[in-house]
Amino acid sequence: MSSKPNAIVAQSGGPTAVINSSACGVVQEAAKSGKIGMVIAAVNGILGVLKEELFDVSAEKPEAIEALKRTPAAAMGSCRHKLKSLKESRADFDRVLDVFKAHNIHYFFYAGGNDSMDTADKVNKLAADAHYELVCIGIPKTIDNDLAFTDHCPGYPSVAKYVATCAMEAGRDTEALYTADTCTILEVMGRNAGWIAAATGLAARSPEDAPHLIYMPEAAFSFDKFVRDVQEVLKAFGRVFIVAGEGLKDQNGQYITADAGTFGKDSFGHVQLGGVAEMLKAVIEKEVKIKARFNKLGTNQRSAMHFASLTDVNEAYMCGQMAVRYALDGVNGKMVTLVRQTYGGQVREKGAKYKCTTGLAELRDVANGEKKVPREFINDKGNHITDAMRDYVRPLVQGEAPITIDKDGLPVFTRFERKPLEKKLPKYL
Amino acid sequence: MSSKPNAIVAQSGGPTAVINSSACGVVQEAAKSGKIGMVIAAVNGILGVLKEELFDVSAEKPEAIEALKRTPAAAMGSCRHKLKSLKESRADFDRVLDVFKAHNIHYFFYAGGNDSMDTADKVNKLAADAHYELVCIGIPKTIDNDLAFTDHCPGYPSVAKYVATCAMEAGRDTEALYTADTCTILEVMGRNAGWIAAATGLAARSPEDAPHLIYMPEAAFSFDKFVRDVQEVLKAFGRVFIVAGEGLKDQNGQYITADAGTFGKDSFGHVQLGGVAEMLKAVIEKEVKIKARFNKLGTNQRSAMHFASLTDVNEAYMCGQMAVRYALDGVNGKMVTLVRQTYGGQVREKGAKYKCTTGLAELRDVANGEKKVPREFINDKGNHITDAMRDYVRPLVQGEAPITIDKDGLPVFTRFERKPLEKKLPKYL
Repeated sequence: MSSKPNAIVAQSGGPTAVINSSACGVVQEAAKSGKIGMVIAAVNGILGVLKEELFDVSAEKPEAIEALKRTPAAAMGSCRHKLKSLKESRADFDRVLDVFKAHNIHYFFYAGGNDSMDTADKVNKLAADAHYELVCIGIPKTIDNDLAFTDHCPGYPSVAKYVATCAMEAGRDTEALYTADTCTILEVMGRNAGWIAAATGLAARSPEDAPHLIYMPEAAFSFDKFVRDVQEVLKAFGRVFIVAGEGLKDQNGQYITADAGTFGKDSFGHVQLGGVAEMLKAVIEKEVKIKARFNKLGTNQRSAMHFASLTDVNEAYMCGQMAVRYALDGVNGKMVTLVRQTYGGQVREKGAKYKCTTGLAELRDVANGEKKVPREFINDKGNHITDAMRDYVRPLVQGEAPITIDKDGLPVFTRFERKPLEKKLPKYL
Repeated sequence: MSSKPNAIVAQSGGPTAVINSSACGVVQEAAKSGKIGMVIAAVNGILGVLKEELFDVSAEKPEAIEALKRTPAAAMGSCRHKLKSLKESRADFDRVLDVFKAHNIHYFFYAGGNDSMDTADKVNKLAADAHYELVCIGIPKTIDNDLAFTDHCPGYPSVAKYVATCAMEAGRDTEALYTADTCTILEVMGRNAGWIAAATGLAARSPEDAPHLIYMPEAAFSFDKFVRDVQEVLKAFGRVFIVAGEGLKDQNGQYITADAGTFGKDSFGHVQLGGVAEMLKAVIEKEVKIKARFNKLGTNQRSAMHFASLTDVNEAYMCGQMAVRYALDGVNGKMVTLVRQTYGGQVREKGAKYKCTTGLAELRDVANGEKKVPREFINDKGNHITDAMRDYVRPLVQGEAPITIDKDGLPVFTRFERKPLEKKLPKYL
């Protein structure tokens, strides 16, 4: 056991194809620095901290650590456990600090979205109040791409590449069989932001290409307009391929799937309906009177390591690596951001080569921020994307991440041994 | 225009990742033979024949023809139009022959499933009765893998490779986030046969790997047993990953999704429910009281060119190529079959290298046959596969089919110009 300060790394929220790559960056850079003792993993994110369920990642086989770059989901486990305000969850926050103290943890690397940055920020302030030396650095992670202060979020480029490809492929299916299956709806994730839906627009290189219509939560959804959109595309191409974000909202900001008044209760008596795609399918069949079907990729879109973006894998690694470098350089209370050199939100240099470096943002600012698809990325009709969106997403989906294929003809993913660290504190959760 | 006899090639039913590869085999082999004039494509399968909507594939750019090997769905268009019995659809059959005569077509290559083989057989007999020289050769195509007399069907290996990978990936997602999303159901295609569901079993290399439970139409489904299965897996691993074929049936052979009496009408008043996965999700949430979610890949599974089996692409090509060779060798009224050299259904030589050649089966026999997942491929409990199934499917999913990626970071698929052949007959449909 080293007397150097230990670091803890935790993964939070919905997994992605590349969150493990960020973890790999943390672990390998920490080892390289020679300044950090163990890199301890919390099993299932903050839950593992509270329960003192920890393991020493540095003790895992080097090839298992390296294989994180080719393994989707969260090799350390994740959770949706959210610490509330300091006032409401004071005991939880104290427990976090107790666990950190008990295991000589002085670096906290937390990969997640807004809520995780909020947690990291609060832990950080609490440590300062308690005069406990702690460096908290956030690592951005969300397929939803809705974190502010970063050009984009690791995890998003891979889901973007995959769903755009899925739209192309299923689009060709609809094109081939439109005489029987005239309409296909592809439902994608994104409860509050339409970034994933928007990415599929890259697949539409010509008007006849799928998707013909893209609906995002940022553009108020109207059933009447939707029916007219579908009829228009149908007239032009004899088929319709639609991408719908799961969180479509009407002009009052209400989720359209929660509108039980219009479409009744579901088969099991719940007020909330199953999903956007099922609802749109029913509307099309009733109002446009054509056969419609839907594909719902679900968790397969955020775990599609087999066709992940190499750019994403590399940038996710860089975020983990830089988190360690920043921490050792004395930075604290910040999240690593991705900074696009050639296209920084407002200024776009045509033909410029994409280059991405890292920056920093206050944990608190990220926690309170949100980034939706801007109006200029959505077309005037609110049913497709603009070239500005294409220019934004195109560089992100470049390259195919390498995977390992075994004798079964299938990918091989790593799994840690997770030899538990001895518990030093009383049971808490 | 050549005076040599022309050939027609048509694609039928649900598209696959490799049916275009078979078409490529037909077109390139026909050109190489020097014995066939034009290779004419029927637009949207038999519908295009009836409507005399045809185009000359040989006139398409050679690179577009070559790119068929990397393009999913059906580049010539497909349909679900089914010719009934000769008695009921005599006019249709006569029309097919009239179109063939009008365009000097003496070879009919038809890629499809049982129904297509039935149609080809009937056209063939009608031609013989009319003393019109016609050679009809069927090319197997179905992701369902349910054609008899062939070891497997082109299209199946690619969907097998893809869904098994999807089960692995989403399985890791569930494993990472089981504290919140404890159960995931992956619904796959296969209305009457469980071959696709069975293929996902290859992903389960150890008991903790997904899928933990696989349900196929061949094993009678019981809700009580299902709930017990789920509880058992939950107890062992704290999470459950389930693969369900869309066509699950109860012990009376009734589709479980059609059982409106048990689960009520759907939100829109239809008696038939949306799908198996939604129903299983509801059962789990109600009976096991854990959160469940589902992924429904839909048409994305049969069009997943981006991770198709190279073995499949090559064998599909071989089927098209051999169809032409057999036809020129005087064979008629047969479907090309795939013959596994080392494992012919009953005899399995351990460690033998997989090799696949082609054979022939009577169109009529294939039309009347059906191949379900045999009992020995399904485990005793009826909820997973055996090693025999693993040995069957493993060689089929070997290799990754090459695709072309463009500057957008997305695949490029070909699209024919489809310059229509001049119509020579009165309008029919």
